[in-house]
Amino acid sequence: MAVGKRLNSLDWSFLAGETRESMMHVGGLMTFSPPADEQPDFLRRLMDEVRNQTKVYSPWNLKLRHPEFLAHPLQAWVEDKQFDVEYHIRRSALPSPGDERELGILVSRLHSHNIDFHRPPWEVHFIEGLEDGRFAIYFKVHHALIDGYTGIKILSRSFSTNPDERDTPLFFVLPPIPRAPKQHDEQAPTLEHLWQGVQSQLDATRGAGRALAEVIKAARQDKRELVVPMQAPKSPLNQKISRNRRFATQQFATERLKAVAKAAHGTLNDVVLAICAGALRRFLQEQANLPQEPLTVMLPVNIRPKDDPGGGNAVGAILASLATDIADPLTRIQMIIHSTTKAKEQLQGMSKSAIMQFSSMLMAPMLLSQIPGAAGRVRPAFNLAISNVPGPDKALYFRGYRLDSYYPVSIPFLGYGLNITVVTYVDTLNFGFIGCRDTVPHLQRLAVYSRDALEELERVCAITA
Amino acid sequence: MAVGKRLNSLDWSFLAGETRESMMHVGGLMTFSPPADEQPDFLRRLMDEVRNQTKVYSPWNLKLRHPEFLAHPLQAWVEDKQFDVEYHIRRSALPSPGDERELGILVSRLHSHNIDFHRPPWEVHFIEGLEDGRFAIYFKVHHALIDGYTGIKILSRSFSTNPDERDTPLFFVLPPIPRAPKQHDEQAPTLEHLWQGVQSQLDATRGAGRALAEVIKAARQDKRELVVPMQAPKSPLNQKISRNRRFATQQFATERLKAVAKAAHGTLNDVVLAICAGALRRFLQEQANLPQEPLTVMLPVNIRPKDDPGGGNAVGAILASLATDIADPLTRIQMIIHSTTKAKEQLQGMSKSAIMQFSSMLMAPMLLSQIPGAAGRVRPAFNLAISNVPGPDKALYFRGYRLDSYYPVSIPFLGYGLNITVVTYVDTLNFGFIGCRDTVPHLQRLAVYSRDALEELERVCAITA
Repeated sequence: MAVGKRLNSLDWSFLAGETRESMMHVGGLMTFSPPADEQPDFLRRLMDEVRNQTKVYSPWNLKLRHPEFLAHPLQAWVEDKQFDVEYHIRRSALPSPGDERELGILVSRLHSHNIDFHRPPWEVHFIEGLEDGRFAIYFKVHHALIDGYTGIKILSRSFSTNPDERDTPLFFVLPPIPRAPKQHDEQAPTLEHLWQGVQSQLDATRGAGRALAEVIKAARQDKRELVVPMQAPKSPLNQKISRNRRFATQQFATERLKAVAKAAHGTLNDVVLAICAGALRRFLQEQANLPQEPLTVMLPVNIRPKDDPGGGNAVGAILASLATDIADPLTRIQMIIHSTTKAKEQLQGMSKSAIMQFSSMLMAPMLLSQIPGAAGRVRPAFNLAISNVPGPDKALYFRGYRLDSYYPVSIPFLGYGLNITVVTYVDTLNFGFIGCRDTVPHLQRLAVYSRDALEELERVCAITA
Repeated sequence: MAVGKRLNSLDWSFLAGETRESMMHVGGLMTFSPPADEQPDFLRRLMDEVRNQTKVYSPWNLKLRHPEFLAHPLQAWVEDKQFDVEYHIRRSALPSPGDERELGILVSRLHSHNIDFHRPPWEVHFIEGLEDGRFAIYFKVHHALIDGYTGIKILSRSFSTNPDERDTPLFFVLPPIPRAPKQHDEQAPTLEHLWQGVQSQLDATRGAGRALAEVIKAARQDKRELVVPMQAPKSPLNQKISRNRRFATQQFATERLKAVAKAAHGTLNDVVLAICAGALRRFLQEQANLPQEPLTVMLPVNIRPKDDPGGGNAVGAILASLATDIADPLTRIQMIIHSTTKAKEQLQGMSKSAIMQFSSMLMAPMLLSQIPGAAGRVRPAFNLAISNVPGPDKALYFRGYRLDSYYPVSIPFLGYGLNITVVTYVDTLNFGFIGCRDTVPHLQRLAVYSRDALEELERVCAITA
C-alpha cells in the first residue's frame, strides 16, 4: 500500500459508517499451548523485543491523513512518523481462573473500545494467565486498513509449521509481500470477498436493481422454498446497537460435524447453520423473543457459475432459513438443508456476473443501513450473517507454542446486532460469536447452547442414521 | 440527588467540555494487602456477590437523560431502569511480574477510555495479580456525577478501621446519607472546592474581573515576588492533548517530607512542590524542553480570611513558581517557599469574598479553554495544577485487606496536559501523576525522578540543617 494513497470506495465506506456505536474494526483471538520446554517469562521477553523494534513496515505504520473527519472525500493513508510501538502491542492478563469465560470477557471489553484514528488503526494484545500455561493473542484492525481475513494471513507469517523454529520474526517487522500476479486461486467464501464484490457491483452496475427484482420475482414463484430479502421477521437481533460488545467462543472437532452432515445428507455448512439455529431458538425462546417466522441468515458461499467451465469459482451470498420455528431438531436441519440447497441451485443457474449482482443486492440493505441517517429506514434483509471461513489446514506454532484455536471477531452492524463467524483450523471448527451487549444480552449462552445443539443433532441423527 | 434532577452549572460545564480527547472523568487507585488468613478466591467471590445485587442506590443508578447531546440545556439525571451491574463492576488482572509499572500501565489504559453516557457514568475495577498477594481497586466516575473527593468518601463507606470486620457492605448498595445540616466544617483545599467556588463567583459576580485587575496591578508593583497569571512560560505541558493517558504513582513517608520542611523552614506543601519541581526540571531537561523561565503552578490552599474571626476557612487558589530555572536544589526550594509565602500573604490580606473572586479569575482561563472553539485562543494562566488533598488519617480495611495506598487519578485538560495530585493517608503521601500520553511522553519517569528529587532534598537539607 503506497504512502499517501487514497482509499478505495469500499475502505472509505467502512470509515464513513464508523460511529461510537457501530465500529468497523475486526479482530481475531488465538490461543496457544506451551512447548515442553516452556519459559515462564516468554511474553515479558517478547515485549522487550517489541520495544526494541524501530522499523515498522506498511501497512502497520499507516495512519489516516484526516483523523478528525473520517468520511473526508480526500481521505488517505500517510506514514506515522511518531510510531509508538508500545501503544499498538500490549500485554494483558486474565483474572483467575483464567478460563474461556474470563478470556471472553476480556476480549469483549477490548473489542468494545473504538480505534484511535490518530494512529495506525490496529492493536495486538498478548494475554497471559490462561489455564495450563497457555496464552492468547487478540488482534484488532480497522476494516479500512485491512480486512480480518488478510489480517490473519499476515499475522500467520510469524507462525511456522515447525515447532522447533523459535526465531520467527514479529509480523510488523516483516516487509510486505510484493503483490503476486493475479492467480487463478480459489476465493474463500468470506464476507470480505462478498463486500469487495458488492462494492464493484454498486460502483459499476446500474441495472443491478432490476436484476434483483427479477430474481426475487422468480424466487417468489418458487414459493416457500426460497428465502427472499425482506422476509426476515422482526427480532431483537435487528435493532439499533450500543457501543458495547459481548464475545464468546466454541470449538468443535470437524469430524463430529461431518458425521452429522453425512447422516443428514447435508453439507458441513448446513450443520454449522443447524447448530446456530438450535442455539438461537433456545436463546430467544428463553427471553420470550423467538419470532413465529423462522430467522433468516445471509451466508457467503462458493459457487461454480454455469458460464465458467474452467472451474473458477465465485463468492456469492445466499439467504437461507434457520427454521427456528421448528421444535424438532431433525426436521429443523432437514428444512435448513432444503433451504440452502434451493438457494445454491438458484445461484448455480446464473452467470458469474449475475451471481455478483444478486449478492450485491442481497447485501445492499445491510451496507445502506450503516450510512448515518438511513438507519431505521432500511428494513433488515435478513436477521444475521453466518460465515464459515477456511483457515490453516496444518498446525501452526509461534516460537514453539502451538496454535490451538483461532476465533474470528467480526463486526456487529447497526440493525444486525449478532454475527457468527466460523474458521476451520486443522481438524477443528472455531466459532466466534460477537454481538451487541445490550440488544443481545447473555450472548455467551449461545456458545454453551451451540455445544448442546450439536449433541442433540448427534443424538437425533444417530437414531435415523 | 433527586431523579430527574437538572444539573447545576458546574456539573453541566464538565459535560459541555467533554470531548474524545478531553475527558472529564476522575478516578482513584487503591492497593490492598491481604490479611494473615488470606483467601485466594476473595475477588472471585466478591464478583459473585456483586452479580447478585439487585438494588442500587443513588447516585450509582443515575444516567443522563440526553446521552447523545451532553451539553443539552435541559440535561438531567434519570434512573437507569436496566442497570447492568456487571458492566460497572469489573475484574481485571496484571501481567507478570504484577509490579507498580504494570499497574500503572493498566490504569493508564482504563483511564484513557471514555465513559459510556448511556449508562450511569462510573466503573469500578477489582485488579488481581499484584505482587505479594495484594490487589487493587481502580474507580472512575464522571465529574458531572460526583467529584473524585466525594467519590473516595463514598467508597470509603465500604471500609472499616477494624481489620476483623469482614462483612462491610459494597458501597453501591448503601443508601445515600441524608444531607446533614450545613456545618462549620473545614473545607479541604481541593480542586473540587475551588471549582465550586469559581462557579458561584462566575455565576454571581460581575465585578470579579475588575477585582482581579486590581490584584494583578498590586502584584506587579510587588515585583518579581508574586507570580501573576499569564506569566507561565511556553512548555510541552500546555498543548492540545490526545485521548490517551499515562499514569504513574509514588508514595513517601510523611515524616521524610516533614523533616525537609523543618530544615528548609517551609511547609509540607512546599516540599511537595519542591519534589515536583526537581522531577519536572530533570524530566523536561532530558527532553531539551525546559523553559528558561520557571514553570508556574496553581494550587488550592486553605486560607483563614481576615474578615472571619470565627476561624472558618476558605479554599483559595494561588500561583507559585516552581523555580525550575534554578539548578541548585536548596536555592530552588527556598525560592518556592518564598513564592508560596508571598502568595498566601496576599490572600490572607483579603476578605473571604475577595479570595473567592481572586481564585475564580486565576482559574477562569483553565475552565474557559475547555469550551470547544475557545481552545488555543486562551493563553494558559499557569503550567500545571498541583493539589495536596487530605485523606483518611486512620488505617482502613476492606474486609480484612489493609488499604496501603490511595492514589488520585485526576483530569488532564486541554492546554494542561499534566496534573499532579497528592493525597495524604495515615503516615504517607501518595502522588498520582496523570498526563497526556503524547504531549507528556515517558510520564512514568516523573514518579522515579520525584523519588530522586526527595533524596536530593534530604541530602542538601541535612548539610544545612
